[in-house]
Amino acid sequence: MRVVVPFAAETPKTRLESVLTPAERSAVARAMLADVLRAIVDAGHEPTIVSTAPLALEDLELSSEVAASTSITVDDRSLTDAVNARLPGTDGNEDGESESDDAATAPDREPVAVVMADLALATPDALERLLTTAADIAIAPGRGGGTNALVVGHPEFRVDYHGTSYLDHCEIARESGATLETIDSFRLATDIDEPADLVEVLVHGREGDRAPARLRELGFELDDRAGRVDIARSEDRARK
Amino acid sequence: MRVVVPFAAETPKTRLESVLTPAERSAVARAMLADVLRAIVDAGHEPTIVSTAPLALEDLELSSEVAASTSITVDDRSLTDAVNARLPGTDGNEDGESESDDAATAPDREPVAVVMADLALATPDALERLLTTAADIAIAPGRGGGTNALVVGHPEFRVDYHGTSYLDHCEIARESGATLETIDSFRLATDIDEPADLVEVLVHGREGDRAPARLRELGFELDDRAGRVDIARSEDRARK
Repeated sequence: MRVVVPFAAETPKTRLESVLTPAERSAVARAMLADVLRAIVDAGHEPTIVSTAPLALEDLELSSEVAASTSITVDDRSLTDAVNARLPGTDGNEDGESESDDAATAPDREPVAVVMADLALATPDALERLLTTAADIAIAPGRGGGTNALVVGHPEFRVDYHGTSYLDHCEIARESGATLETIDSFRLATDIDEPADLVEVLVHGREGDRAPARLRELGFELDDRAGRVDIARSEDRARK
Repeated sequence: MRVVVPFAAETPKTRLESVLTPAERSAVARAMLADVLRAIVDAGHEPTIVSTAPLALEDLELSSEVAASTSITVDDRSLTDAVNARLPGTDGNEDGESESDDAATAPDREPVAVVMADLALATPDALERLLTTAADIAIAPGRGGGTNALVVGHPEFRVDYHGTSYLDHCEIARESGATLETIDSFRLATDIDEPADLVEVLVHGREGDRAPARLRELGFELDDRAGRVDIARSEDRARK
């Protein structure tokens, strides 16, 4: 299945600004993207990064296997527009422009999956539950009513990421006459947006994942001295 | 399978105090408990509420079917001690006391499930994935490294809910020589602790659930005017 991974290359993870510098946020965002790509490739699929700005694959430090299966394209439109241009039943450029030349915009009716780049906990098993859906539309909701990952196999379905997108997408599926499945996955529900989310990366990161390794390099560790779990950052490595 | 549902009857949901009065918190906590009990019964199991204080089943307004399948017992010990007394391989009172008389403390080696009372999003499907585990120990982690639900089928395993209990429980399982499965469920990972969690109840509540109905009665509704989803409470119903 074609798997699109939208990536905001220019201003990644602004809601982590209280604990990470811009350069650190960029490094953590790229590490999470690398982990997501690895999970997709390990699940047997070939991801296409749709980046808002030019991005060098080499900077992601992917394994040769993952790099060989990954393509990249730049699309500076909004998330909603960039995704819709790549769904089945479109010609890739609904607005009439034609600057796009990536294979992911193929105007066919094969299902397309869209997986967010900050799903640092994604595993091949969790992705397989999504990608093997028998429904026309499958959605893995995120916390707060978001849509973290979905499969679109119906030519009339379009995304709208604004607001309570999970409920909106369920409604759009119904209006399209499409069958719908909701994927009940903690790993796919956990997008890493806020400092508290970093706990999840440290708790549930897999062997070989880059994001937990990067966070530990930056001095983060689990801290449950207060009885509740939080993150702590060692003083000598905290941002200046 | 025996399913234990610990319930803090006296000071429920203190982290919701910024948006709910004590009486409202109590009502919402009981509504969530009722929803959890219904999901367990719908999954074909018989729950036992282990309450920190006397609790009248009638107050939970359960359907007759759910009420008939639910038992209740009082145990004012800590969560960890009250659960451990009910795991397989114990005599129900490790501290030598014998005030307990509920069936859930049976000193046999049948597996026991423990499901938290604030898993308002629990469904029969999600619970079945947990309760049909083939492993000695199955854990549904909560956010922040917690343990929201688990199945214990190994006589040496004991819980410890303090701190990063998910990681601790994985370690205890390994030390016990038990096989371990982690259940990847957003619904079971979502315990309702903080105001932001109420969004999940409103988004994902099932037809007939009491907690979303109760929240709506209290004036809560989804609010995505700011682009992000939050809860809003209508002014005329907000607490005085």
